[in-house]
Amino acid sequence: MPSFTVYKGSDSGKVVKSTTEKPALKGDQVKLRVTASGLCGTDLHYNKADMGLGHEGVGVVEELGPDCHNLKKGDRVGWGYEHDSCGHCQECLRGNETFCAQRAMYGMADLDQGSMAEGAVWREAFLFKIPDSMSDEVAAPLMCGGATVFNALHQYNVLPTDVVGVMGVGGLGHLAIQYAAKMGCRVVVFSGTDSKKEEAMRLGASEFIAMKDAKELKTERPINQLLVTTSAQPEWNKIIPVLAPNATIFPLSVAGGDFSIPYMDFLINGLTVQASLVASRYIQNRMLEFSAHHKITPIIEKFPLTEEGCNQAIEKLAAGNMRYRGVLVRQ
Amino acid sequence: MPSFTVYKGSDSGKVVKSTTEKPALKGDQVKLRVTASGLCGTDLHYNKADMGLGHEGVGVVEELGPDCHNLKKGDRVGWGYEHDSCGHCQECLRGNETFCAQRAMYGMADLDQGSMAEGAVWREAFLFKIPDSMSDEVAAPLMCGGATVFNALHQYNVLPTDVVGVMGVGGLGHLAIQYAAKMGCRVVVFSGTDSKKEEAMRLGASEFIAMKDAKELKTERPINQLLVTTSAQPEWNKIIPVLAPNATIFPLSVAGGDFSIPYMDFLINGLTVQASLVASRYIQNRMLEFSAHHKITPIIEKFPLTEEGCNQAIEKLAAGNMRYRGVLVRQ
Repeated sequence: MPSFTVYKGSDSGKVVKSTTEKPALKGDQVKLRVTASGLCGTDLHYNKADMGLGHEGVGVVEELGPDCHNLKKGDRVGWGYEHDSCGHCQECLRGNETFCAQRAMYGMADLDQGSMAEGAVWREAFLFKIPDSMSDEVAAPLMCGGATVFNALHQYNVLPTDVVGVMGVGGLGHLAIQYAAKMGCRVVVFSGTDSKKEEAMRLGASEFIAMKDAKELKTERPINQLLVTTSAQPEWNKIIPVLAPNATIFPLSVAGGDFSIPYMDFLINGLTVQASLVASRYIQNRMLEFSAHHKITPIIEKFPLTEEGCNQAIEKLAAGNMRYRGVLVRQ
Repeated sequence: MPSFTVYKGSDSGKVVKSTTEKPALKGDQVKLRVTASGLCGTDLHYNKADMGLGHEGVGVVEELGPDCHNLKKGDRVGWGYEHDSCGHCQECLRGNETFCAQRAMYGMADLDQGSMAEGAVWREAFLFKIPDSMSDEVAAPLMCGGATVFNALHQYNVLPTDVVGVMGVGGLGHLAIQYAAKMGCRVVVFSGTDSKKEEAMRLGASEFIAMKDAKELKTERPINQLLVTTSAQPEWNKIIPVLAPNATIFPLSVAGGDFSIPYMDFLINGLTVQASLVASRYIQNRMLEFSAHHKITPIIEKFPLTEEGCNQAIEKLAAGNMRYRGVLVRQ
């Protein structure tokens, strides 16, 4: 009967320590010892909920259910936003299980555990082997943050010859720059001020545009693919003039309200607005392979994987001071 | 020196007769005798402008410029929204000339002539041979209306196994039903009331949904591709529940303001919002071939191609009484 510490949200917004008990492993369930957890902006939506926080997990296999076939004790594995799906619907059958009607997603299912924890029990089918060359703390932010931007670039046929715009240099943006550059794309970064210019260029950007005081934007080449990683939607009157015909816009952040864009500009430029979620499993595996091959590395700030560490990290992220991804690491 | 009658817009919104004179034909210019012109909703945006109206033209070749190679006198040809493009930019080179930065489009270039006219001079490169089995009056509404809905279905990889939703049964919608059905798709029609149900089913719909008094919509299968041909945008709270995961929405009508959609619904369903314009030339030709092969036939109301006929047709369309496409026919 696995039993482990988890860090949960609470009414006050403070993370509190709790214990989760699970029945004996069945089917392809795997018991993990958690070693690292990324902290994602989405976690801030849940820190007042009575649920295990975190969905960028890495750990070591400790125990295997009777139907496990692919993992063995001691394997290093990660998991992300999705924990389960039905396995037989059309979306599951075509490798698109992130859209299964019965998908088990963070915040909606399995609320008794998360990646901010000392242990977890997940289905083998939704765990991903971490490449040997990649450390736990590097892998953790890739499980959702990396997967989210990689999915947009991989699933929707972005070409190596495209110009990719990345709006916002944060947890998602700083990974998007690296992926797009390594895919061969010319990368144009849009940020508020010049403060992140040097880092963005080092990560692979070809061009850096400070938006704040610019009345009119100019880029060397028009943008084919625009990844919007900022929580605020772009000022379209500035952005649309630098988009190529038939450009695709990926609004990647999670926010309420409506998505709006000037209709005639959208129409006459033949634009696509594309929702892209986290990655399905075959893309998650490609993302990990690609990341290892190209040494895609999140820039992280480490915190101890304790109640105090979780609270420190969440406070820093909420205050907008995390640069770029907080990772909780088992001591 | 070609000279011919054209019907232009005027301050009062009344169509007035005028004469256009052109210099002697040069390059691949072709002089046509116009035989039929469709009337499209877009024309209502221009009937107060001093310009030749109409962009769904069919005519007979009367005279050929020195560099014409493909047409001969007496050929029946049509033209649509685009009259010219640069021919050497990236978009032109990849068969995407509707997005050439120098595209000559209706309402923006060549304002001295339109399809509501007795003659016209256009480049051979932007004329399309009309299949022998297709009459002039059938061909005319296909040149823009048919091309617009066919382009959405052809250019963006709609599959024969998809469920296609068509919202609005008018000039565009009644053609979209026919194309999608002949492509093998299951077609679900959304209309205000039941009044067009019988006709929609006869045109190839599998299912017809009257929206007006329905609090909640139900379809037999979820919609993969939604063509919005109504000028008003859909009530998303009704429509989103009947969309399949990763459905694509094509807003096809021309309107001002913003396009808006609830952001979280858009994101968690992995939707695509796709702008689709009129067809590039290779798609225009495929549309004509496909239409002839499958006997896609617009339902038309005929008017004489005269000043009076133009005014009658425009009044009827503006009043919302055209069912489904007005065509002006040379007497």
